[in-house]
Amino acid sequence: MDRRRPPRTEEGWYVLHDFRTVDWDAWRDAPEREREAAIEEGAEYLASHEAVADADAGGSATFSVLGSGADLLVLHLRPSMADLDTAERRFETTALADFTEQTDSYVSVTEVSGYMSEEYFEGEEIEDSGMARYIESRLKPEIPDAEYVSFYPMDKRREPEYNWYDLPFDERADLMSGHGDIGREYAGKVTQIITGSVGFDDHEWGVTLFADDPTQIKKLLYEMRFDPSSSRYADFGRFRFGRRFPPADLDAFLAG
Amino acid sequence: MDRRRPPRTEEGWYVLHDFRTVDWDAWRDAPEREREAAIEEGAEYLASHEAVADADAGGSATFSVLGSGADLLVLHLRPSMADLDTAERRFETTALADFTEQTDSYVSVTEVSGYMSEEYFEGEEIEDSGMARYIESRLKPEIPDAEYVSFYPMDKRREPEYNWYDLPFDERADLMSGHGDIGREYAGKVTQIITGSVGFDDHEWGVTLFADDPTQIKKLLYEMRFDPSSSRYADFGRFRFGRRFPPADLDAFLAG
Amino acid sequence: MDRRRPPRTEEGWYVLHDFRTVDWDAWRDAPEREREAAIEEGAEYLASHEAVADADAGGSATFSVLGSGADLLVLHLRPSMADLDTAERRFETTALADFTEQTDSYVSVTEVSGYMSEEYFEGEEIEDSGMARYIESRLKPEIPDAEYVSFYPMDKRREPEYNWYDLPFDERADLMSGHGDIGREYAGKVTQIITGSVGFDDHEWGVTLFADDPTQIKKLLYEMRFDPSSSRYADFGRFRFGRRFPPADLDAFLAG
Amino acid sequence: MDRRRPPRTEEGWYVLHDFRTVDWDAWRDAPEREREAAIEEGAEYLASHEAVADADAGGSATFSVLGSGADLLVLHLRPSMADLDTAERRFETTALADFTEQTDSYVSVTEVSGYMSEEYFEGEEIEDSGMARYIESRLKPEIPDAEYVSFYPMDKRREPEYNWYDLPFDERADLMSGHGDIGREYAGKVTQIITGSVGFDDHEWGVTLFADDPTQIKKLLYEMRFDPSSSRYADFGRFRFGRRFPPADLDAFLAG
Amino acid sequence: MDRRRPPRTEEGWYVLHDFRTVDWDAWRDAPEREREAAIEEGAEYLASHEAVADADAGGSATFSVLGSGADLLVLHLRPSMADLDTAERRFETTALADFTEQTDSYVSVTEVSGYMSEEYFEGEEIEDSGMARYIESRLKPEIPDAEYVSFYPMDKRREPEYNWYDLPFDERADLMSGHGDIGREYAGKVTQIITGSVGFDDHEWGVTLFADDPTQIKKLLYEMRFDPSSSRYADFGRFRFGRRFPPADLDAFLAG
Repeated sequence: MDRRRPPRTEEGWYVLHDFRTVDWDAWRDAPEREREAAIEEGAEYLASHEAVADADAGGSATFSVLGSGADLLVLHLRPSMADLDTAERRFETTALADFTEQTDSYVSVTEVSGYMSEEYFEGEEIEDSGMARYIESRLKPEIPDAEYVSFYPMDKRREPEYNWYDLPFDERADLMSGHGDIGREYAGKVTQIITGSVGFDDHEWGVTLFADDPTQIKKLLYEMRFDPSSSRYADFGRFRFGRRFPPADLDAFLAG
Repeated sequence: MDRRRPPRTEEGWYVLHDFRTVDWDAWRDAPEREREAAIEEGAEYLASHEAVADADAGGSATFSVLGSGADLLVLHLRPSMADLDTAERRFETTALADFTEQTDSYVSVTEVSGYMSEEYFEGEEIEDSGMARYIESRLKPEIPDAEYVSFYPMDKRREPEYNWYDLPFDERADLMSGHGDIGREYAGKVTQIITGSVGFDDHEWGVTLFADDPTQIKKLLYEMRFDPSSSRYADFGRFRFGRRFPPADLDAFLAG
Repeated sequence: MDRRRPPRTEEGWYVLHDFRTVDWDAWRDAPEREREAAIEEGAEYLASHEAVADADAGGSATFSVLGSGADLLVLHLRPSMADLDTAERRFETTALADFTEQTDSYVSVTEVSGYMSEEYFEGEEIEDSGMARYIESRLKPEIPDAEYVSFYPMDKRREPEYNWYDLPFDERADLMSGHGDIGREYAGKVTQIITGSVGFDDHEWGVTLFADDPTQIKKLLYEMRFDPSSSRYADFGRFRFGRRFPPADLDAFLAG
Repeated sequence: MDRRRPPRTEEGWYVLHDFRTVDWDAWRDAPEREREAAIEEGAEYLASHEAVADADAGGSATFSVLGSGADLLVLHLRPSMADLDTAERRFETTALADFTEQTDSYVSVTEVSGYMSEEYFEGEEIEDSGMARYIESRLKPEIPDAEYVSFYPMDKRREPEYNWYDLPFDERADLMSGHGDIGREYAGKVTQIITGSVGFDDHEWGVTLFADDPTQIKKLLYEMRFDPSSSRYADFGRFRFGRRFPPADLDAFLAG
Repeated sequence: MDRRRPPRTEEGWYVLHDFRTVDWDAWRDAPEREREAAIEEGAEYLASHEAVADADAGGSATFSVLGSGADLLVLHLRPSMADLDTAERRFETTALADFTEQTDSYVSVTEVSGYMSEEYFEGEEIEDSGMARYIESRLKPEIPDAEYVSFYPMDKRREPEYNWYDLPFDERADLMSGHGDIGREYAGKVTQIITGSVGFDDHEWGVTLFADDPTQIKKLLYEMRFDPSSSRYADFGRFRFGRRFPPADLDAFLAG
């Protein structure tokens, strides 16, 4: 009963998925002046965070969330947890906050694991600067310019017959590689941000997918479900689906 | 540990099951004028959406939901997620919204899978235009004109002994075919709309059944439960049961 | 992997278990006139439904529920789902509804299955009119005149080693028969109403037990738990326990 | 697949664990006169129930509960379910109820099972009056005079490899005996009240432990967890931990 | 089916993790005087508890919690459960409590187990005073002076193939030792407080980790997940992540 070899990981920006419902009753009943203040302060908060005026680096984006449980997703990537903590509480100082309630969230950090690029983690001189750029692009990702977003957290199973953490390293690396092959088939259609959350939130990873065509997200995930990395080893949490809008359209979002 | 072959799928209209409770206390206490406005704006919203005035195609229907957790189901089928996002938020602009709260929902898309009609998906010339019409009728379904509706989400299991996603394609196709045979026995009694939701909501599929006789829905699902596609491979989420009413009867619905 | 033979079933009256909490704070604070109106309208609603003034047939009963989550259970049996839908919404038109909130419910239909009486379902001439009367008494049951009620929903398991739906018909029939033997030992002490809910609510069956002595319910269920039909094949949902009171005692119920 | 022999059981007093949160915001804001009335009526309710003025026999006790979900536990033991139903609703008539909300509860009945004393249940003349007194002390227990209480509900498992209800009677009796041996090691340190709840609440048993030293409760339960009756056959629900206070100290409890 | 030998344990200070949300809407709307009073009384409560003015020994610390479900964590370690009970209720007497709601908590006690140091528990004269000091430091720990905290509760599994409580003592001791080796690799980077909660709260242990660099917590827990003590035997509850702030910064915390 020996310990299995973990992959090395490198972490980049910290990530907060901040899900909020809108109090539509209060919004309809609010006097015009309060609504204007809420839109002005809300749009200013969203715009300044998308412009990363609050930190040295990172990115933010805003989405209208479909279905119950959340109406709004504000996604923040920042260099430190302290940045996220501040961004989350600063939202509460805006007049927009009067009309929203935080109902869900996810705290994680961008992650690259050594399953993909052992050399990189071996500290070898990486001549392939393409690889270095690739890793950088995953640790400090630009938020893709796509209309739709899908977010879900996930875990790897630790059951007697399907125990990811009890597989030899090479077997896990093979599974991750096959898993990655499917993702690459969707290059240009679906872009992902993978974040780790062990110790930060209730699941082990967060997956955030971006696409202009929602069915491409569905097809990608459905295809992956037949791959043993998912069919045998993955447990999925809740799924949330949203549609991006620019801060300047906050008034249109709230107008229904 | 090879990847299994996924069926091809084709997607059609996006679907929102929008479940809401009625705030009966507020309704009883509301002045007549507010109730009239709520009925007028609510009925107008429902009628215009059932008439699909907001989009190029689709359908909508309204149901009284039995039991706790929801009183009202507004079902929308539309060509795009953006249409659903708009329909959901537009409800909140009506005076009826003052008396309802969104408590549950489901986001999915109509789906036909290649288990049924490999030829269609092979891109072969389909001479059988009946098949083409059938597939079209599932991707862009007319909402059946029936008194009752039953909705539930479901998943296929991924456990060591019962792992749907680890079965060979042909075995899955056989199981789906047997499953479909049961459904066909209920032709004319129960009509279904099957939607996929991987990446969109918490389960993999949504099933929406329509019938004039509730016991036919019960008999169909009970019979299916003895079929291995269900008895070994299906996990079911919550079930909600409703009774359709036309937008013009919104006042009667609210009158108790 | 063949489909197993389902038992035939016959369905009778539809059943709504309508669980509500009382807003005791609002009740204590309400002016005497409002309390009188609530008691009058509430007692009238309960009495007229127990008298089945709203439908051709059926029955209703009212219970004080012990513990948190519900204070009141109104049980309705009616010939159609439409009747239940109306009864549920009509409650909300009473002044009593101002002081209650629906927190839980169960939607089902009385059921007799072919495990018990194959002949009946074979459509053979049933000479034994006792059997016919027995089946009628289960499809259109009189609500037993007992002080206490216990309600719980249940499912049959579909796990690899304990898969009810994968057992041969005869084995299931034997198990149901042994299960029934225990019930018969409690004849005169505990009376049951068995309802099916596949497609209507979150579990497959609802069990409603009536007794004057609560320990008889406990003894019956505990004994059944050692029978393989329960020990291997049953999963139980929540349990709720109540004490019946006549509509005329609504004021005493609310007086604490 | 035969039915296993259940132990005989004898039941005594019915038990309600009534958990409530305090609305501290309302308490702080309440005028002195309302607080005095709440303390007076609350202390009177608690004192009269601890004195069992409402029934022929039984006992009640009051505890401050640590952590979220409940602030107050009122424990009632009474000869009938009707007594508990009345006690629970009578609380709602006090001015103290304005500042509390029932958030959790457990309904059960004291139980002695035939694993312990077959002779007793065989109806034989019990010469050993010590045994008779012991059984009486478990069916009609005095609430121990200890500072701390721990409550949790539990079930016995019914899984393929760990199926309590599928074990032969003698094996269960041996397991219960070993289990009891551990309890006896803690005599004088930890006192227990065991109650059965099949048909009354969501789990099969309730366990209420009393001790002056909290670590003795922890040590007892931890030691038991290594006994096969727990390690293989027990599933535990939520745990709540409280500290007893006399009704006269209600004002100190509410003063923080 | 014999009972396994439990490790001896020694317990020290009792621990309350008190999680609260801030009512940001009320905070924004509150008049300056109320906010000043809340900050003054809140900071005074936090400062006096961090100074342990309420008891003979212990420690307290305050954290801003990221994400939904909690905004504030007040951590208390005290010699008795009565101390914790008082500290929890005393918070409710402050003007700060008007703007917070307790949403989650954990009740436990610091614990050292005999897997680590059999000799200590054998009651032998411990010459190694370093060991004595080490044990003392775990039973009465100083709260580490680090920027970030991660808290989660956990259980050891009791499933047929992965049953921690059914393993021989020596096997468990080996697993704990390997587990501890990983922790020691992170000495100086991550500091832990291990508490037991059997009988006190819903899980068996609470783990509270402190670090200046959040990724060190993630790396430590991820590495441990590949160790059989976790990969086969551990079940984890919710995770909460916070950032420490001194009582004097309460106003800055509330200012967003």
